[in-house]
Amino acid sequence: MNKINIREKLNLFHDHWNPRIVGELNGQHVKLAKLKGEFVWHSHAEEDELFLVLAGEFDMEFRDRTVHLTTGEFLIVPRGVEHRPIAQEEVSIMLFEPATTLNTGDAESKLTRTDLEKL
Amino acid sequence: MNKINIREKLNLFHDHWNPRIVGELNGQHVKLAKLKGEFVWHSHAEEDELFLVLAGEFDMEFRDRTVHLTTGEFLIVPRGVEHRPIAQEEVSIMLFEPATTLNTGDAESKLTRTDLEKL
Repeated sequence: MNKINIREKLNLFHDHWNPRIVGELNGQHVKLAKLKGEFVWHSHAEEDELFLVLAGEFDMEFRDRTVHLTTGEFLIVPRGVEHRPIAQEEVSIMLFEPATTLNTGDAESKLTRTDLEKL
Repeated sequence: MNKINIREKLNLFHDHWNPRIVGELNGQHVKLAKLKGEFVWHSHAEEDELFLVLAGEFDMEFRDRTVHLTTGEFLIVPRGVEHRPIAQEEVSIMLFEPATTLNTGDAESKLTRTDLEKL
């Protein structure tokens, strides 16, 4: 039961699309990630997913529209909804989602990350 | 599926110890609250609770120690652990916790809030 300083944790890694686990509660994970570039289209059949922008900005693409998110904003992507994050420049985000959530959802690829590091 | 701007939501209320619901996912609520002064000692039998400081600082008291939290830091209080937040000055926080969570846990009092407003 120690406090987590988000800035300190973000300084511990520099790669993109590789979330780190920084908290766990009620079967959910709190993750930090840095994004840059385009991710893959995917959805999560059973998991709703929260994206909170800590520093920077990015676009969350849906099949029918795009939501632009900047520092201090969050978006909840409901289960089953296809989405694709795109960041022109590096953005740091916090994720809140079930511990079962796979980063690429139903679209396993080279970008899929399992056995996420805990910071 | 609209984005939430945290600052805009925080500007919509000014009372203390009265969390607002700003998101729901996977049976969990995302809440915003403003704290000032001393809360009551309480615990939640079934719910772990995350406190993230958005602006300001406060102390989370436990029976055996106190954790000081400032902007950009979070703390997860496990279920069953007695705690009491104390804020010398107003602090704005985000909470992640199960939708079933009562703010005063096992210590119902005048400070208990039910039917939380959704912003």
